[in-house]
Amino acid sequence: MPKSTALNEHRYLQLADSIEGHIEKNLLKVGDKLPSVRLFSEEHGVSMGTSLQAYYHLEAKGLIESRPKSGYYVRYSSHKYPEVPRMSDPETKESPEDVGAIVSSVFNHLNDSDFIRFSLGVPAPELLPQAKLNKAMVQAMRDLPASGTSYDPIQGNESLRRQIAKNALSWQGNLHADDIITTAGCINALAYCLMALTEKGDTIIVESPVYFGILQLAHSLGLQVLELPTHPVTGIALDALRNHLQKGGIKLVLLVSNFSNPLGSCMPEENKKEVVRLIEQYNIPLVEDDLYGDLYFGKSRPKPCKAFDQSGLVLWCSSVSKTLVPGYRVGWVAPGRFKEQILRLKMNQSISTNALSQQAVANFLANGRYENHLWKLRQALQANSLQFIRSVSEYFPEGTRVSRPQGGFMLWVELDPGMDTYELYKQALKQQISIAPGRMFTLRAQYQHCMRLSYGLLWTDRVEGALKTLGTLAKK
Amino acid sequence: MPKSTALNEHRYLQLADSIEGHIEKNLLKVGDKLPSVRLFSEEHGVSMGTSLQAYYHLEAKGLIESRPKSGYYVRYSSHKYPEVPRMSDPETKESPEDVGAIVSSVFNHLNDSDFIRFSLGVPAPELLPQAKLNKAMVQAMRDLPASGTSYDPIQGNESLRRQIAKNALSWQGNLHADDIITTAGCINALAYCLMALTEKGDTIIVESPVYFGILQLAHSLGLQVLELPTHPVTGIALDALRNHLQKGGIKLVLLVSNFSNPLGSCMPEENKKEVVRLIEQYNIPLVEDDLYGDLYFGKSRPKPCKAFDQSGLVLWCSSVSKTLVPGYRVGWVAPGRFKEQILRLKMNQSISTNALSQQAVANFLANGRYENHLWKLRQALQANSLQFIRSVSEYFPEGTRVSRPQGGFMLWVELDPGMDTYELYKQALKQQISIAPGRMFTLRAQYQHCMRLSYGLLWTDRVEGALKTLGTLAKK
Repeated sequence: MPKSTALNEHRYLQLADSIEGHIEKNLLKVGDKLPSVRLFSEEHGVSMGTSLQAYYHLEAKGLIESRPKSGYYVRYSSHKYPEVPRMSDPETKESPEDVGAIVSSVFNHLNDSDFIRFSLGVPAPELLPQAKLNKAMVQAMRDLPASGTSYDPIQGNESLRRQIAKNALSWQGNLHADDIITTAGCINALAYCLMALTEKGDTIIVESPVYFGILQLAHSLGLQVLELPTHPVTGIALDALRNHLQKGGIKLVLLVSNFSNPLGSCMPEENKKEVVRLIEQYNIPLVEDDLYGDLYFGKSRPKPCKAFDQSGLVLWCSSVSKTLVPGYRVGWVAPGRFKEQILRLKMNQSISTNALSQQAVANFLANGRYENHLWKLRQALQANSLQFIRSVSEYFPEGTRVSRPQGGFMLWVELDPGMDTYELYKQALKQQISIAPGRMFTLRAQYQHCMRLSYGLLWTDRVEGALKTLGTLAKK
Repeated sequence: MPKSTALNEHRYLQLADSIEGHIEKNLLKVGDKLPSVRLFSEEHGVSMGTSLQAYYHLEAKGLIESRPKSGYYVRYSSHKYPEVPRMSDPETKESPEDVGAIVSSVFNHLNDSDFIRFSLGVPAPELLPQAKLNKAMVQAMRDLPASGTSYDPIQGNESLRRQIAKNALSWQGNLHADDIITTAGCINALAYCLMALTEKGDTIIVESPVYFGILQLAHSLGLQVLELPTHPVTGIALDALRNHLQKGGIKLVLLVSNFSNPLGSCMPEENKKEVVRLIEQYNIPLVEDDLYGDLYFGKSRPKPCKAFDQSGLVLWCSSVSKTLVPGYRVGWVAPGRFKEQILRLKMNQSISTNALSQQAVANFLANGRYENHLWKLRQALQANSLQFIRSVSEYFPEGTRVSRPQGGFMLWVELDPGMDTYELYKQALKQQISIAPGRMFTLRAQYQHCMRLSYGLLWTDRVEGALKTLGTLAKK
């Protein structure tokens, strides 16, 4: 939250939170009328402006609505929410389908901006601070020796690494600039980690469902992927993880600990501690993909497992691709005890990463602009998530289950087990709507009835209309 | 050559070439006085300005010198040149040394601009058009949707791919934009090619000596590297290549066909045709690293092997890192029949490359600025190469051999077989001079008495002084 307006915002948010609490506890029910702005202001001893701000805030979140010449009404309550998806129970059979072909098809429609792209893996451009990034880039040309035309140091831009280390303080990360290696996005960091720590034929553990990029990457390196049961709220099942580590034959564990893609799960702190304890016990590295951690809807940034890493076995990977600027390809890894291996891989395969982009991001991170932007982005995403959940509950078939992400911008939707979302995908394409079918998120024969919807879009009537269309198609 | 001044330059270059020919043929000897500018102008029926341009050009190349109040004198002739290095005859024993450690040490001094960096693998920043690149970058922010903050298409920026295809016409390359995949520099293209076409334990053929980056990359992928005899002028020995392909067990061939690093060899066209014939006969892919091809000193750009590729077995890799801008990390590959594999690898490991850098380079390439810049850069590099060869011949021990690169900016220097250039490297560091010791360019126990000197520097008295210092150290 920007400091200059902190007090004011504090007050209206307090009021909004209090109303939200009443809705959650069912003290205010769907359809109930809220007090008028004047009355509310008198009751709470605040200005009408502050009351209005509180109401606007709840309206943006989709919780209340303004009816012309009548006032504000409760529009939505979690008591009407559809159920949360079940804990996943992954198949053990490989799927006969070529998931790569589905992925390619979905990717092919990603640059078509006429489409409503629920399949998008990044926030929509409108939610990102383009103009400010341009300024940061022009500044970078001034800052860097030779205007950034020369090779960057192999380990990466030092200002950027310092900023990353500084930001890690928000989760008590005890990192120094020298602990960090920059990469061309987070997936590039994951690629280096897998290449450094595994060989063809090795087995790695992941969540299920899991981001298809991780599956494709592991597959292309000849790795066996063990998909473990994962809860949509609390993440990977610890008992399954424990059993498999005990059994042996596992080369590494790869987890998206905060707001996993596609489930949106966020592991509780105790679970993270237990994961770190387990990998230490069995001396197995943990590659932690934490690229959604900054997009929390709660009071503070959830810690990654790295926060509890004493042994250097956790390789913490992240980027600004999901929070600030996908196209710059700026990511990083804090590889713990594996720094030398990662550094050599980076040198061997790319010499260095783009010099200007790194400096531009460092500039953006340096003076509070990033926090300011994140604050706004999180507000928008949280409001969107509620609009999406409400729309699914209104327009989708009875019995549809939907996740409750507490951060990030991915919604996991579970339709009737008889449904085929790849068919739905093809039908939706004809209506210029793209979704990500569930089977993209596994190498096994499952999740055919699921899909991932990105709510990282600007919420508009057209978006709501597209969700309605999807629901109608799903009902057929 | 810029069109506007083409005629004028044509005339003075003709005159300069004619004088150079006289020097080459020993009709003009070192120390001979040239005709006065006035006399020369009358003899050739040109303006004094044109004659002066011709003399300046030869002076810049280090062939003649102006003596105050006296006139121009021949300073240099190839008849005084030291001998060319011998054809390489690679060892078959692996070296016990950790070449990686030497490479890291050399790299660590690369960002120290107080050093005279003969070890630099790119042209010095002063030789690159920083200001114009900045403009191209600002333009790129205007050109790209969302100012380049969104993901680039997986295959890469289309304008850039069109420009690359257009430039390939200069060597009769029949490429279309769709044949090209952009990468984060040329080494990244090589990495994808090796990952797509080989598995751990496979054997690949390379030149010897060979760029250490290729060795490190192959080594990190678990490949066996077969270093074949290579001639400093004509490149890899065809009989050795033929024998090994016939014997079998080779997974691919990797060649720097034009101005190899470090030898500077450029394969004659017939050799290239024969290489393509051979790989077709044995159905072995050729990864062609052509990142120096645009830096020719002759009349036209030498063709890569790709020009003769009918079967799609040649994967042509290049970049603008050696010619325009290392820090942007813009490279590419035209992978022939292996396009799908490379595209998937790129998607899996990086999603896409930096959007703005690609557009900026596309802008730079679009309107003749690149040709103009290359023309100037080649002039500077050719002049430098002659200055370097002259300096080595003046300051280094009797019997020193030195390559005759006809392009690029790498000089290969062979000292007395008893010399140890790693020792020389360490001594030179104390004088703030860095060189690349010969053993970096092999995985075998050889080239201890060789070194690579980059002449991609701005030629100054300090640089000449550093070469003198090196020579003095070598004499000890």
